[in-house]
Amino acid sequence: MTTYNCAERDELRRLTASELAAHQLAKFNALVEEILPHNAFYADKLGSLQRPLKSLDELAVLPFTFKDELVGKVEGGDLAANRTYPLERYVRFHRTSGTRGRPMVVLDTASDWQWWLDGWQFVLDAAEIGPEDRCFLAFSFGPFVGFWSAFDAVAARGCLAIPSGGLSTAARLELIRQNGATALFCTPTYALHLAEVANQQKLDIADSNVHRIILAGEPGGSIPNVRQKIESAWNAKVIDHTGATEIGPWGFSDDKQRGVYVNEAFFLPEFISVETGKPAGEQELSELVITTLGRSGAPVIRYRTGDLVRPSWNHNGPCNFVLLEGGVLGRADDMLIIRGVNVFPSSVEQIVRGFPEVVEFRMTAFKQGQMDQLSVEVEDRLDRPERVAKELQIRLGLRIEVTSVEIGSLPRFEGKGRRFVDQRNAS
Amino acid sequence: MTTYNCAERDELRRLTASELAAHQLAKFNALVEEILPHNAFYADKLGSLQRPLKSLDELAVLPFTFKDELVGKVEGGDLAANRTYPLERYVRFHRTSGTRGRPMVVLDTASDWQWWLDGWQFVLDAAEIGPEDRCFLAFSFGPFVGFWSAFDAVAARGCLAIPSGGLSTAARLELIRQNGATALFCTPTYALHLAEVANQQKLDIADSNVHRIILAGEPGGSIPNVRQKIESAWNAKVIDHTGATEIGPWGFSDDKQRGVYVNEAFFLPEFISVETGKPAGEQELSELVITTLGRSGAPVIRYRTGDLVRPSWNHNGPCNFVLLEGGVLGRADDMLIIRGVNVFPSSVEQIVRGFPEVVEFRMTAFKQGQMDQLSVEVEDRLDRPERVAKELQIRLGLRIEVTSVEIGSLPRFEGKGRRFVDQRNAS
Repeated sequence: MTTYNCAERDELRRLTASELAAHQLAKFNALVEEILPHNAFYADKLGSLQRPLKSLDELAVLPFTFKDELVGKVEGGDLAANRTYPLERYVRFHRTSGTRGRPMVVLDTASDWQWWLDGWQFVLDAAEIGPEDRCFLAFSFGPFVGFWSAFDAVAARGCLAIPSGGLSTAARLELIRQNGATALFCTPTYALHLAEVANQQKLDIADSNVHRIILAGEPGGSIPNVRQKIESAWNAKVIDHTGATEIGPWGFSDDKQRGVYVNEAFFLPEFISVETGKPAGEQELSELVITTLGRSGAPVIRYRTGDLVRPSWNHNGPCNFVLLEGGVLGRADDMLIIRGVNVFPSSVEQIVRGFPEVVEFRMTAFKQGQMDQLSVEVEDRLDRPERVAKELQIRLGLRIEVTSVEIGSLPRFEGKGRRFVDQRNAS
Repeated sequence: MTTYNCAERDELRRLTASELAAHQLAKFNALVEEILPHNAFYADKLGSLQRPLKSLDELAVLPFTFKDELVGKVEGGDLAANRTYPLERYVRFHRTSGTRGRPMVVLDTASDWQWWLDGWQFVLDAAEIGPEDRCFLAFSFGPFVGFWSAFDAVAARGCLAIPSGGLSTAARLELIRQNGATALFCTPTYALHLAEVANQQKLDIADSNVHRIILAGEPGGSIPNVRQKIESAWNAKVIDHTGATEIGPWGFSDDKQRGVYVNEAFFLPEFISVETGKPAGEQELSELVITTLGRSGAPVIRYRTGDLVRPSWNHNGPCNFVLLEGGVLGRADDMLIIRGVNVFPSSVEQIVRGFPEVVEFRMTAFKQGQMDQLSVEVEDRLDRPERVAKELQIRLGLRIEVTSVEIGSLPRFEGKGRRFVDQRNAS
């Protein structure tokens, strides 16, 4: 079951700016009213809050929440720092992937889990998934929230949910074919890996019934060359989704594949300019700050995501939510400054993925004296790394060392790919 | 959410024989009323049924359903032979493990899935699982229904559900410890394997918070020596559960650990004597035949399970459902006749598991002329296979060859163990 039906979600997507602000203000006030008496973490942080807020402008004086605070507060035996209710109320356990730093446990109550599933419906709307769809989840169903929420959201929508934990890539390809799966849910990295294995086994996946691929967990779905590579291998449309364990399912592809919308009916986004530290304007490079407008068991308020984006309010589309062109451009931590030029790993990926003969790649950042440097390894069927280096120089204005390595020698990933190795702080 | 609360389930467990029969008759009639107009498979089989039935006795004239019929009817592109509604109504896809023969796809609608979760509540009652429990599912979450239904049932009951797909055994042990899991859900085989790895790593699992172990997928939980081995390694109580993809969660441990009750509120059991082919009497060796009293999207009626059991109506306990002493004793297919003696692999397992120094074992059945024969390999820390052979001779009255093999040389399993190798039909 879903809380909002299709028409109601459409209404939310079409709210005007002032209607949306009123909706968000009401949701925010209800949330803090519910949590402040119980949630020690936010009672501490927001103790002085005059509630209810009369305008969203008043948010600006509230403190930010940083990931370190959420991870750091757990003491022996306790499960999650940011917890509103006694443990008995919680039904779902998830843990961040720990790609960066210590894994963080986040728990959800039954109604917060329903909120996750409701949030996912916006992604499934964007993917035009209906009850006739057979949704194949190529995912291992470990503690990482990843596609757990998608799985339950698909079933809540009345679609057939096909789980594939614990299977090899070849067995998954067979299950997709055998059961005529129509929609595939996975990471961008794994969509490419499935295509690579299919190619080795001479399976024609472009001829399968899969007509939609819903990507999450990594930025790939909004990197045009990655998206096109996946779309052409599978002969299917890619829909990007953005979310995080400690936040929720906050974004989904726009209809023209320009980037992702922030689901402003469920989340309140703010944008902090990287340059000025002040609220960002149209298209300005900024860090995304998110407040959940629900999930009372584990809410985040003014959470610094570390995601760099360019917000666009003046876009043209059937949905009035703010659009992030190109999706998440990179992580604040990953931004390199090479000889004065800002470079994101995603920009490098976009360029490298423009070469269809490049099977896999890896980039390594390191320090040369005080300066950031980057090198790139490619598995290149043509074994001509210099043409990749030349394209990087043309597009980024930077000379970057590119070396060719043996096909199959770089790591493959089922979940999040780790193609960016940051050794800038290595001793 | 669950459909019945704790008191209502208790009421069902305490129905008298005549009340239970009335409950079952009403459920059965409602089921056939619902399915016969839509389900081609059963419309064919039960075309001549005079409905409603006036008494359960009338069931005896209806045809049995065999697994081969369910597997065999699927044609190219279709998903499941026994399907009541259009595919659009179904939300859950599962597939039998294929331990024997071709895997079979079974689909569930949202309300049938709720029926699964309601059925599991009887198992969780037997295990005394409450909202304060942290339930750890050591399972890979592939297409096999196994603990998928347990996972959702745990969350529906308000307990914390901790998933552990895609993790190594060592990582699972760490997650159990780190998060203070109180209940473990796995196969008997995997409970032993976890204990073996913990032992290698000098982890004291007897000191963990785990106080209940819910077993399914294999008979082990009702084989006393297997159960005791698991209970002493973990210092926890074992609760057995029986079920099957094409049937549902049909049984659960009795309070005195004598065997399993058939959940007669959800299923209608019949018992066919192995000797006479007629309805079995008290304690007679018989094949279990099951009719689901719900699951209208994929019901089974008079389904020959192939499971051999000894029914007991005259047991003494807080639950009036029929008790199967020793749980499922074996599969009809697996029964060996060695020099005139009926032998089940589970009887051999019970005896072999009585030796704490035997780490792992495997039995192989083969033909010698027209006669069944059995040999057993053991990983034996004492390397004295003759004492195992002697015990088998005393307990079974049969001389069986037992050989000692290197520790670690026999296969380990995450899901169902395959310790019984049947080569009687090998050419």
